[in-house]
Amino acid sequence: MKNLLITGAAGFVSGHFLEYLKENNLEYNILATDILEDFKADYKNFKYKKINLREREQLKEILADFKPDYILHLASISSVSQSWKQPVESFVNNTNIFLNIIESIRELELPTRILSIGSSEEYGNYPAEKMPLHEDYKLLPCNPYAVARVSQEMLSKLYADCYNVNIIMTRSFNHIGPKQREAFVVPSFVKQLIEIKNSGNTKPLVVGNIEIVRDFLDVRDVVDAYYKLLTQGKIGEVYNVCSGKGVKLKEIIEIVSDKLEICPKIEIDSSRVRPTDNMIIVGDNSKLKSEFNWNPIFTLESSLNDIIDYLSQDRRNQNECKNKGTV
Amino acid sequence: MKNLLITGAAGFVSGHFLEYLKENNLEYNILATDILEDFKADYKNFKYKKINLREREQLKEILADFKPDYILHLASISSVSQSWKQPVESFVNNTNIFLNIIESIRELELPTRILSIGSSEEYGNYPAEKMPLHEDYKLLPCNPYAVARVSQEMLSKLYADCYNVNIIMTRSFNHIGPKQREAFVVPSFVKQLIEIKNSGNTKPLVVGNIEIVRDFLDVRDVVDAYYKLLTQGKIGEVYNVCSGKGVKLKEIIEIVSDKLEICPKIEIDSSRVRPTDNMIIVGDNSKLKSEFNWNPIFTLESSLNDIIDYLSQDRRNQNECKNKGTV
Repeated sequence: MKNLLITGAAGFVSGHFLEYLKENNLEYNILATDILEDFKADYKNFKYKKINLREREQLKEILADFKPDYILHLASISSVSQSWKQPVESFVNNTNIFLNIIESIRELELPTRILSIGSSEEYGNYPAEKMPLHEDYKLLPCNPYAVARVSQEMLSKLYADCYNVNIIMTRSFNHIGPKQREAFVVPSFVKQLIEIKNSGNTKPLVVGNIEIVRDFLDVRDVVDAYYKLLTQGKIGEVYNVCSGKGVKLKEIIEIVSDKLEICPKIEIDSSRVRPTDNMIIVGDNSKLKSEFNWNPIFTLESSLNDIIDYLSQDRRNQNECKNKGTV
Repeated sequence: MKNLLITGAAGFVSGHFLEYLKENNLEYNILATDILEDFKADYKNFKYKKINLREREQLKEILADFKPDYILHLASISSVSQSWKQPVESFVNNTNIFLNIIESIRELELPTRILSIGSSEEYGNYPAEKMPLHEDYKLLPCNPYAVARVSQEMLSKLYADCYNVNIIMTRSFNHIGPKQREAFVVPSFVKQLIEIKNSGNTKPLVVGNIEIVRDFLDVRDVVDAYYKLLTQGKIGEVYNVCSGKGVKLKEIIEIVSDKLEICPKIEIDSSRVRPTDNMIIVGDNSKLKSEFNWNPIFTLESSLNDIIDYLSQDRRNQNECKNKGTV
């Protein structure tokens, strides 16, 4: 059985990736890492190790011992807004931790295939007529997180081309799906809208700029792409991982409101409006589609349905707990 | 009197920068830093502090205390060949130390003007017909040092544009001049050629690839450009610092051999031939020239004369020391 290392294993994408492996009867010997003291997952051959990836020596020992055939590198501080507040933390916990991984693999001379996750933020501000964003475009990163990701991608390319380390890169666009943290925009909206429905439409929906257009891909389609790229992607190549479709945040509010049969008042919280936000980000996924048997399965409607179900369930659970006095 | 911080103060460029200030009667209160235990310089208001710029807290204390009006950031591990052997060291000691400086300045909200030194290596491999390299060209870094410098430049641009930190960037091409370490190509050639002359033309000149073309600027013209950029350069802008002229390494050997009146045998040491070396690197210095009253003063011939004088002197000193039995 092949060895697969997953970093950032306690996160949203990792959980769905493990689900994907199970559903597709894909058996791996998994070592999962994160910075939590302990972490469990419902997967047959699963071990967990706490590690701070900034500690290169400790990381190298783990890699020398486990000798992964594959590394799915999901560990990251991926928030743009946090990166504005803590640019050094963002840089070190994206670029430097990644460099620690690839340098250890190089030093150990392992044939490991590594998936390096990048971001649509790397493209920077392109006007609407330049959409969809293609992998060939010049990168114009304009926030600390984006700079860290471009640096990571340059290192990936260098290590792949010049040191023969087997790295495949993504530029991943926005994800949606059940279990995403409510700090992200779509679950934040859906959660608020469910509360508005439950409170009898009395509270307003608090939003930032809802005129911006984003490319949302269901996390279950994301992990399908990641699995294909990790096992079959071309070394040294970069792939957009996206739906190829742009949607205004306002439209998401409308779809969810319709499903919940509510008509919320909308309140704009200026602290949520980021002046540097790109107005439109839509990706071109033709490279990913043409090289693999990959196609998004989840429509925006079906993703939003599942998110509503998940968060309603979540809310019911909380209410039950409250009734039992445990929360 | 204004406060000027110089990092990497024990290096080649710093020495010439201090000479430049003295010659032009430019008085500053100087704090110099490096990783050496102690360092002295013949300049009136000069203090030295040992610091490892990786230590952000210590660095921030120094900056908070000194409140520099200007920072000339020369500290770097600038060797391409070393970067291939120790890519992490190269990245951390270029990109991360620079990020520590600009983040400290941001946090302290100082109006400091910072000169960020980059490299012609950032351009990567362009063919001869694309010379001279212009600031607008796409950057295609293809060694670890170059990637580190591009990352540094992206951070510079971000901090200048979005955090209002007063950073000016250079892409500096090859330097030559007296006092350069003999690990560099020109002093290595000149030193060997002087020895060949002194040994009666018996030894061969050991070289790498001498067909490659580089753009050499005398270090005394470099520091003139650095002073102008540091004090008058446009914030967030990048400037090539170069002669604008390409010269084959072979031509340098010919000029020096003619001056020394020798005709050396040439031996190619394949370990010195780097397969990834660019064949030609020549820069466009029109931006620097047009925005400032800057023009290179030193011709290649005059630079080489001064290097020959310096290394002959050096050799005479060594011989004198040997005769006295102190070396």
